[in-house]
Amino acid sequence: MRKEFRISGFGGQGIVLSGVILGRSAAIYDNKNAVQTQSYGPEARGGASRSEVVISEDIIDFPKVIKPDVLVCMSQPAFDSYGGDIKDQGVVIVDRDLVTVPEGYKEKYNVKVYEIPFTEIAYKEIGLKIVANIVMLGSLTKITNIVSKEAMEKAILDSVPKGTGEKNILAFEKGYNYI
Amino acid sequence: MRKEFRISGFGGQGIVLSGVILGRSAAIYDNKNAVQTQSYGPEARGGASRSEVVISEDIIDFPKVIKPDVLVCMSQPAFDSYGGDIKDQGVVIVDRDLVTVPEGYKEKYNVKVYEIPFTEIAYKEIGLKIVANIVMLGSLTKITNIVSKEAMEKAILDSVPKGTGEKNILAFEKGYNYI
Repeated sequence: MRKEFRISGFGGQGIVLSGVILGRSAAIYDNKNAVQTQSYGPEARGGASRSEVVISEDIIDFPKVIKPDVLVCMSQPAFDSYGGDIKDQGVVIVDRDLVTVPEGYKEKYNVKVYEIPFTEIAYKEIGLKIVANIVMLGSLTKITNIVSKEAMEKAILDSVPKGTGEKNILAFEKGYNYI
Repeated sequence: MRKEFRISGFGGQGIVLSGVILGRSAAIYDNKNAVQTQSYGPEARGGASRSEVVISEDIIDFPKVIKPDVLVCMSQPAFDSYGGDIKDQGVVIVDRDLVTVPEGYKEKYNVKVYEIPFTEIAYKEIGLKIVANIVMLGSLTKITNIVSKEAMEKAILDSVPKGTGEKNILAFEKGYNYI
């Protein structure tokens, strides 16, 4: 079963790293196939960042997201750009303090919306705003149940700078347990 | 003009990061478009790592590499897998101490082959084998002349852990000046 993720925000939030970790977790530790793509166009020069991941138990013949099952927005411009492009019954996850979801959005697109204070959790619980992306991965893992918690933790440890593993795993747990 | 890069090696060599840096440099600092993809399949669980980057001045409609213009191999299994898939008159760059290029390869595929001791340069000049991927990006920048030196340096500084910028820029320069 093919599942498509789009993770979006601004540069410096670790959007690309989130996608790399998600792809690795599925493919290397959960025995699935994954393709993870960054597209950079003119919008990237305005500071926007976007990463897409396709996960499947079968071979992935088309590597790009067609219509996301899961959309993450870590900035208002990201939500404004991508909020309308989501599968029926999809899941939309936003940073509560950075994105305002308009009234009626959930009903209009028939999606589940999670508004979570990722950056606040990162700052208050870990002391580092920069791990908001890892907090987000924790919540995403629990909400979507597409990759396992163990696979994500291993992929995080593979991917973050040496010496920061413990803080990142803690950030992941905080996001996971928030749900 | 569309240019396709495939960078391959084993896990832990920073193959994914090399692709991210190359894509960012072209798109954010050189005003081009770029798509950068990691594909993970069963081979990833054997420790193989592959990153693909497509760079173009036009919109990139097909995001995957069709036939690489530039192939980088940082391991023998990577060369054995991908060595035969290269454009006529393409460029093949390998780590000299990790890859043996068979006799007649250059003529068979009509390509230019660069055999460069990336890992040795990283270890001898910087004291860190782990920056071999950045040394490689230095040589690749000089050889291919598709992205500018300045754009690559900015993208490296964006992408490496804080506090390691100077060593990484030095690694880049060593690879650039080796050519």
